[in-house]
Amino acid sequence: MWHENELAEYLDIRYPIIQAGMAGGVTTAELVAAVSNAGALGCLGAGYMNPEDMRKSIRQIKQLTERPFGVNVFIPEVPKVSEEEINKANDWLRPFREELNISEPPEVKQPDAHLFEKQIEVIVEEQVPVCSFTFGIPPKKAVQQLKKEKITVIGTATTVREAIMNEENGLDMVVAQGSEAGGHRGTFNGGFEEAMIGTMALVPQAVDHVNIPVIAAGGIMDGRGVLAALILGAKAVQMGTAFVTSVESGANVRHKETILKSIEEQTVVTSAFSGKPARGIRNAFIETMAEHEKELPEYPVQNTLTKTIRSEAAKQNRPEWMSLWCGQGPRLSKQRSAGEIISDIAAQVDDMMTFKL
Amino acid sequence: MWHENELAEYLDIRYPIIQAGMAGGVTTAELVAAVSNAGALGCLGAGYMNPEDMRKSIRQIKQLTERPFGVNVFIPEVPKVSEEEINKANDWLRPFREELNISEPPEVKQPDAHLFEKQIEVIVEEQVPVCSFTFGIPPKKAVQQLKKEKITVIGTATTVREAIMNEENGLDMVVAQGSEAGGHRGTFNGGFEEAMIGTMALVPQAVDHVNIPVIAAGGIMDGRGVLAALILGAKAVQMGTAFVTSVESGANVRHKETILKSIEEQTVVTSAFSGKPARGIRNAFIETMAEHEKELPEYPVQNTLTKTIRSEAAKQNRPEWMSLWCGQGPRLSKQRSAGEIISDIAAQVDDMMTFKL
Repeated sequence: MWHENELAEYLDIRYPIIQAGMAGGVTTAELVAAVSNAGALGCLGAGYMNPEDMRKSIRQIKQLTERPFGVNVFIPEVPKVSEEEINKANDWLRPFREELNISEPPEVKQPDAHLFEKQIEVIVEEQVPVCSFTFGIPPKKAVQQLKKEKITVIGTATTVREAIMNEENGLDMVVAQGSEAGGHRGTFNGGFEEAMIGTMALVPQAVDHVNIPVIAAGGIMDGRGVLAALILGAKAVQMGTAFVTSVESGANVRHKETILKSIEEQTVVTSAFSGKPARGIRNAFIETMAEHEKELPEYPVQNTLTKTIRSEAAKQNRPEWMSLWCGQGPRLSKQRSAGEIISDIAAQVDDMMTFKL
Repeated sequence: MWHENELAEYLDIRYPIIQAGMAGGVTTAELVAAVSNAGALGCLGAGYMNPEDMRKSIRQIKQLTERPFGVNVFIPEVPKVSEEEINKANDWLRPFREELNISEPPEVKQPDAHLFEKQIEVIVEEQVPVCSFTFGIPPKKAVQQLKKEKITVIGTATTVREAIMNEENGLDMVVAQGSEAGGHRGTFNGGFEEAMIGTMALVPQAVDHVNIPVIAAGGIMDGRGVLAALILGAKAVQMGTAFVTSVESGANVRHKETILKSIEEQTVVTSAFSGKPARGIRNAFIETMAEHEKELPEYPVQNTLTKTIRSEAAKQNRPEWMSLWCGQGPRLSKQRSAGEIISDIAAQVDDMMTFKL
């Protein structure tokens, strides 16, 4: 069977499909559990979560499924950002805040220097089966700590060199994120523009240069994409956008609606929301901020500065100022339950294996 | 068999593989004939050719193969470019000309307003089996003229909308060119940046929206890419970079060498050489011209202005100033004969069909 391979066996999942650990509230406990219950691997996007909320979410998931699931965390970054840069960015953001009746810019606090360690501790304590990482290579200590507990560690790469770095640092598997992918670019070794490699080109080249299993991501939305990725040499796929529009997803209803009616030409890679390049549907916020793209405070500072704008825009029904993360396959998005999305994919691949080939 | 489908039957080829009609001397008669003799479709890149040279090449190909082959031509563009723009561009190009001992900038003549019609006439007169187009939709008259002669007409699209336009205008098939592709972007309906869609996302969405066969292009370098593209719904693939490094290719030896030793992060989309965005390996010419990217004379004027620089750089062994077109899969490039490249692909796919699936 197409879905039986060493990765599926290792992770104890029926289908080699991983739901991307999207941060920002998309990955509700219901979504993660529904994906895992359907035979794929659900994943909590805990990037921005404090340890308490993370633990709460993990426990909710455990109440909804007995199947394996994962948690995604971010490698911490502490950029040097000056007061002046922050003030300049706040000037550019003021018109949005005024329109939304947000009285003050959020305070940029020093990030909790131990957040990452605390997140890892929760994952260990809760014995989460899988931990995936974005934005870099996790510190050796964390990798050892997790592997000692038999927790599978998965890294993210956008180039072959980054995939090799993941293998060299002990990661068990690596996601190869093609340029089609929605949301944040995982690039951590060099400029993001050089690392905008299409999935069709990235996956086979990555597969040829590492021995750990490669998980394909970027533009994969249905059974065709899943089987194509396996043919390219991937041992599994990671799908984000396909699950954003699912019934169980916590994405704002306007975000879901916008994806469902968008076409592939409408997404763009922007740093306007977070200070880090990410693919989303072009809107007024992105267009207005485009001219300042190169001068914005680095991630995560810009992310903090736009936080209330994004949340208020969602509350006040203003999708033109929301971060509408989306990959390059929106025409293939569907409003279905996560379980249906997965069973549709499995049926589609079964069908291709039986008839077409 | 994986390679038997309506497109292969229609074109009377054994393998649904088309060698891209790359302009600029890559597609020697030897290459085109070798590809066709190996069971795929060779294609002469006649974009920049005058009718006499084109006819000569077609006749050479006919002497080397009895199998079907194609000719690729460009939809003509006549931009308004001012003397001032040309002078400015020549100022930026002067340092390269001085280094290469090129005494004067090439003269920018009015293009032959009837070149395209004359090219079509040659294709008709020589009864070339396939005619493909880049940079737009061919005029109705040309489509009718070719179809009347039972010459298959193939268009190029970089978005779903462009694919639909090709179908609506009577093209028999359409190449869906993903963002991974080397050489010129075929975008003609809107900005090229919006049309940088990865092959994994572009192909299934295009397939869902047109009834004519879709030919996948971009990042496809071996049997894995070919089979993946067919799984995505394409009826054939078009491969360019894979054939640039072939023994029979007319590409400059330094161009071939540079592809063979490059990695996926090294390509970039630039308008510096021709005034039209194209993907090639980053070098000093691209880097130096980057700051003027938005102010260059439009294609084909900039192409004319850099012509002697490119040809002299090739002669004088200066790859840093040559146009080193290359897709995002250079790690998969091989120095093999075209026939071996095709038989390797066929064997690889046969193997995947037998064992892996």
